Amino acid sequence: MGTRELGLPERVPATDGLPERVTIWEVGPRDGLQNEKSTVPVTVKLEFLDRLAAAGLTTLEATSFVHPKWVPQLADAEELLAGLNRRDGVRYPVLVPNERGLDRALAAGVSHIAVFGSATETFAKRNLNSSLDDQFAMFEPVVTRARAEGLDVRGYLSMCFGDPWEGPVSPEQVVRVGKRLLELGCSQLSLGDTIGVATAGQVERLVDTFTGQGIGVDALAVHFHDTYGQALTNTLAALRRGVSTVDSSAGGLGGCPYAESATGNLATEDLVWFLDGLGIEHGADLDALVSASAWMAERLGRPSPSRVVRALAG
Amino acid sequence: MGTRELGLPERVPATDGLPERVTIWEVGPRDGLQNEKSTVPVTVKLEFLDRLAAAGLTTLEATSFVHPKWVPQLADAEELLAGLNRRDGVRYPVLVPNERGLDRALAAGVSHIAVFGSATETFAKRNLNSSLDDQFAMFEPVVTRARAEGLDVRGYLSMCFGDPWEGPVSPEQVVRVGKRLLELGCSQLSLGDTIGVATAGQVERLVDTFTGQGIGVDALAVHFHDTYGQALTNTLAALRRGVSTVDSSAGGLGGCPYAESATGNLATEDLVWFLDGLGIEHGADLDALVSASAWMAERLGRPSPSRVVRALAG
Repeated sequence: MGTRELGLPERVPATDGLPERVTIWEVGPRDGLQNEKSTVPVTVKLEFLDRLAAAGLTTLEATSFVHPKWVPQLADAEELLAGLNRRDGVRYPVLVPNERGLDRALAAGVSHIAVFGSATETFAKRNLNSSLDDQFAMFEPVVTRARAEGLDVRGYLSMCFGDPWEGPVSPEQVVRVGKRLLELGCSQLSLGDTIGVATAGQVERLVDTFTGQGIGVDALAVHFHDTYGQALTNTLAALRRGVSTVDSSAGGLGGCPYAESATGNLATEDLVWFLDGLGIEHGADLDALVSASAWMAERLGRPSPSRVVRALAG
Repeated sequence: MGTRELGLPERVPATDGLPERVTIWEVGPRDGLQNEKSTVPVTVKLEFLDRLAAAGLTTLEATSFVHPKWVPQLADAEELLAGLNRRDGVRYPVLVPNERGLDRALAAGVSHIAVFGSATETFAKRNLNSSLDDQFAMFEPVVTRARAEGLDVRGYLSMCFGDPWEGPVSPEQVVRVGKRLLELGCSQLSLGDTIGVATAGQVERLVDTFTGQGIGVDALAVHFHDTYGQALTNTLAALRRGVSTVDSSAGGLGGCPYAESATGNLATEDLVWFLDGLGIEHGADLDALVSASAWMAERLGRPSPSRVVRALAG
């Protein structure tokens, strides 16, 4: 008999202050599939998204309106959004890098967008070929127009804990950049450990630095990579500080091309095993998620890096 | 430039009550290599052990005196112990299943042994073909004689959080069996999550149940498997409760044949990244460990499952 039929994981709440409910911000269909070498057919993406929604996930980052020259894997953004089986109570945010991307997003009728920025000067320079000031000059018209159109805007911040050229990143630097994004009109910051180097004390310190400057935990989400095996431990540290939105990727799809290994996003299934064990509500069904990710892994022709998917679908 | 040259992980202590120092109980040479399909030459084992000792690990579980019929991979126990380059300040405990094993261990001049028991009736029956009472009848002369000879004895308890036939395991059951091992003369219990199903609240509850019955955290060690991605998070939960001995396996070698996937022990390098980030002392050098595990992975002909080893040696 399998662990699931035996009632595992057992539900045992932690004794100290974890949130009663966590919002899982699923990034697999966008952040995961944008890194695939061969383009995934739009019909497969649509079925994957619908399987994840059917599994109970309520925030599905669907695609990106980045220029197809940079990310050909997501050149089908319009076709994908047109074909989406929109379910009640599910948000389908999309990534928008610039005004041209916003035009496309508005034409496609999206109601929730995200912009993607760097917390450090060096990564801004290397990844976006701009300074942090240039980055904000680019964001400003995007966020302002999006807000005027009634859209909700999330701000991603990458390299919040370590930068592949600078090394450690100070929490003050991250809060400075994060504040500018919130002042522009972002409703939430997703604090990314893009190269996966953070440990639990850093996570606590960064959240404390935000709250110490009057920015509440409700404005914060965390986005951890498992490159050094720390993603879920860092999540526990963030939850203990009251953060209740966690980014993850179904099946552990995706990763950062700047990281030193292929190990990427926190896997949604590993997060859900953890949340289920602690009795924290999230609305998703673990077995349906495992089944969706195992299906996707078959389409991609390689095993999922999620330990839970490997254990249960193996 | 690599993350290590850039000073990562950054050292940022957690704000609440973690131990200042952790003892890493390295199980890779025994628990890891006993599960290898093809037998590793004793010269390779000896070099692996010496590389791990040179990297600063101070407790190296070297081998097992189980009958060679059951674990042919460790049939070279005498030869290995005779060839060991014993370093000052390093312990080389060995696993001893019965009196015949103890005879062999004593003849080989060991000073530290471990016995391996089940926390549940079903696993005792399935794995050892005995009841829990039979298990203690078998342990009693081993522990008594070992103690009389001046040996230190550790007691492993498997299936402390979930059993592959019973499902959830009550903490009272684990404490009942653990107490009997301590009363026999064991100096420490290693609480094993043999099938990797535990989550953080269960860990807190089990440690609390022990301390509530007057057994201090110094008598406890934790032994987590990463089958469901929870090993390091569970370690954080245990450290928060004051446990300061953590079992891990260099390179993530090994696993449990009863688990639903091949994902096995917590990798020593992933643990060390975590401890280094939190500024918790342990005495080992991360880069030397990565190098030892990468060397061993090459001997075994497959990549290490440790994320840190993959990231840094890749």
